[in-house]
Amino acid sequence: MNNINLDKVTKILSEVRNKIPLVHCITNYVTINDCANILLSYGASPAMCEAYDEVFDFVKLSSALYINLGTLNKEQEQAAVLASTSAKIHDIPVVLDPVACAAVPKKIQVINRILQVGKIDVIKGNIGEIKFLAGQSSNVKGVDSFDTGEGALECCIALSQKYKCTVAATGKKDFITDGKRSAVIENGTEMFTKVTGSGCMLGALCGAACGASEDKFTATVNAILSMNIAGEEAFKAANTPGSFRVKLIDCIYQLSEEKLKEGAKIVWK
Amino acid sequence: MNNINLDKVTKILSEVRNKIPLVHCITNYVTINDCANILLSYGASPAMCEAYDEVFDFVKLSSALYINLGTLNKEQEQAAVLASTSAKIHDIPVVLDPVACAAVPKKIQVINRILQVGKIDVIKGNIGEIKFLAGQSSNVKGVDSFDTGEGALECCIALSQKYKCTVAATGKKDFITDGKRSAVIENGTEMFTKVTGSGCMLGALCGAACGASEDKFTATVNAILSMNIAGEEAFKAANTPGSFRVKLIDCIYQLSEEKLKEGAKIVWK
Amino acid sequence: MNNINLDKVTKILSEVRNKIPLVHCITNYVTINDCANILLSYGASPAMCEAYDEVFDFVKLSSALYINLGTLNKEQEQAAVLASTSAKIHDIPVVLDPVACAAVPKKIQVINRILQVGKIDVIKGNIGEIKFLAGQSSNVKGVDSFDTGEGALECCIALSQKYKCTVAATGKKDFITDGKRSAVIENGTEMFTKVTGSGCMLGALCGAACGASEDKFTATVNAILSMNIAGEEAFKAANTPGSFRVKLIDCIYQLSEEKLKEGAKIVWK
Repeated sequence: MNNINLDKVTKILSEVRNKIPLVHCITNYVTINDCANILLSYGASPAMCEAYDEVFDFVKLSSALYINLGTLNKEQEQAAVLASTSAKIHDIPVVLDPVACAAVPKKIQVINRILQVGKIDVIKGNIGEIKFLAGQSSNVKGVDSFDTGEGALECCIALSQKYKCTVAATGKKDFITDGKRSAVIENGTEMFTKVTGSGCMLGALCGAACGASEDKFTATVNAILSMNIAGEEAFKAANTPGSFRVKLIDCIYQLSEEKLKEGAKIVWK
Repeated sequence: MNNINLDKVTKILSEVRNKIPLVHCITNYVTINDCANILLSYGASPAMCEAYDEVFDFVKLSSALYINLGTLNKEQEQAAVLASTSAKIHDIPVVLDPVACAAVPKKIQVINRILQVGKIDVIKGNIGEIKFLAGQSSNVKGVDSFDTGEGALECCIALSQKYKCTVAATGKKDFITDGKRSAVIENGTEMFTKVTGSGCMLGALCGAACGASEDKFTATVNAILSMNIAGEEAFKAANTPGSFRVKLIDCIYQLSEEKLKEGAKIVWK
Repeated sequence: MNNINLDKVTKILSEVRNKIPLVHCITNYVTINDCANILLSYGASPAMCEAYDEVFDFVKLSSALYINLGTLNKEQEQAAVLASTSAKIHDIPVVLDPVACAAVPKKIQVINRILQVGKIDVIKGNIGEIKFLAGQSSNVKGVDSFDTGEGALECCIALSQKYKCTVAATGKKDFITDGKRSAVIENGTEMFTKVTGSGCMLGALCGAACGASEDKFTATVNAILSMNIAGEEAFKAANTPGSFRVKLIDCIYQLSEEKLKEGAKIVWK
């Protein structure tokens, strides 16, 4: 059973590389370059279209829509909502990264608006953000979460039922569920917390994976596993953050299904 | 004849380094950092001024204006048009990168507005974009072109006459023309398609070269040749995209007229 | 006396790493990613919050506010002023980087507005900018200063009295004063002028240091010394700009109080 699941997960890497999904990203400017580069290295094609009068039509051309709520300006915020409506109409998968929703309550309004007029297929946040959305308190500071992950899977499942979507909470361990199937991934590296954009880049990869596969749960597991295994390899090559960032992009590019299979530490629930 | 041309082309590198042209860039946020860094490595001075109430006066101080249409917001779009007017009045060369004009037809309105109230000295796009502007269909997906380049030079010449400017179309081969003189450059590396911003950075270099030389055609050939030779050297040093990006900036910095001459694969037409 | 001062300066590195100050940055998009990454490597936590309706409340959560005037859009500009008001009310230190104030006179209006409704604890600019603010002419071109630094300390002291804050002017030598105590730092590397964002990153570090220490003068000296020593080490490892940028982040991460002490070339005035 577990091997069957893992096979399905790792295959998504090849599906991304075969399909080259166009991932339409509306994301913060801090890490927008990193998101574009990691998408290219993963095998996808990035498009950072965010002009209000372009996004509705552009979503139609895309394989997936990635919305990241970190420091969006007004035009981006409105474009994000409109893009999600287009995604609903045109049946394009939507991945949401609710950056800083626990620190900036206004983000919740944007999420509710997206749920109201658009849709969310996958929500991927750090454990603090996911717990907050599930109605639980957590230890957060600014955009960072210092939560140890206790009770995280239960929160993911609850949020999955509330939003009717796949939910992923990242931290030392990563928790993914679609309400029925769940996985805990124990790969990764502490170095992710020493560079900006690890979470944003991961969200973009979730978009790419969902743009290549109908099975959003399995696609999300692939994106998170890919990021974590590449992170582990990058850390082996470079244990300082400047060099680590460079190697991370290299290692995403050099991923193979075999590497994912060999390295995976997944517990299926 | 060919050697005379090549001499003229390679000399522009020294002209950039002697003049240190101030290149005023209005460009997308995805790759704005890359554009600034490659300009510095080439020998130019970047200025990313885009505030609507500053650009008119700032253009006067500049050696060249680079406008890149990728994901401009409203303020940038208006600033780009106004800056082009200032460039016309103050006789500053304008390089335009019509990013995604084939995928997002609204871009054409901005281009037409720039032609109407400002001017364009050089238009540099991928083959798909240039063909689209010349009225020909092409194989594009999002911001990327998968065109093989057949008929590209003819399209460049047609567009050059339509817009009365130098035209460059990039792809596996690069095509440059001012309507009278034409060149095909066969240098470069596939790795340019694995990192974001190769095209944007090249556009910025075209701005720098045009800011250092009156001969826009020859300047554009230098910018494209410099990018391609540096790309070839970077790929020799690093065949994965994260490291390649770093080496590309290094190799632009380390370019010399001799390296350009030795490596150049240019066919003059 | 000098050793006591140097001890106080170097200790701030540990204070940053113990406190992990949350540095709220409103900064230009050219180098926003670099600022976030260098803050993480220094030991601080970056937050690039700039939405007008979020900044007032977000400042309260922060240890310091860093405002960088390079190419701010309208929303950022208004957010910067509002954030400075919040910082005044909530007693959060404010570091201002007056990028391009000598080239774009409109920047002065923003600075005056911040002084009127908010406050400035530290102003850190290049020598050209600081001289301009102090009412002296200087040799500037775009955002870059080519000033040799003659009379710089006097200008810093004058501006310190005018704005009632700590003032730092950077160049070949760096000058810091709070009006009573002054320091001249002779560390650093020419390579800072070959990459974009050296000044912006330094400003962010000043924010982090001031977020960890009450003594703004000593904190600013630490930030500048840290940047310079890391730059010297990065240059030893990589003398080309692409690689230098990567190593700079690595070297900030690897700084220690001992390295700062051994390398420091500070003249106290």
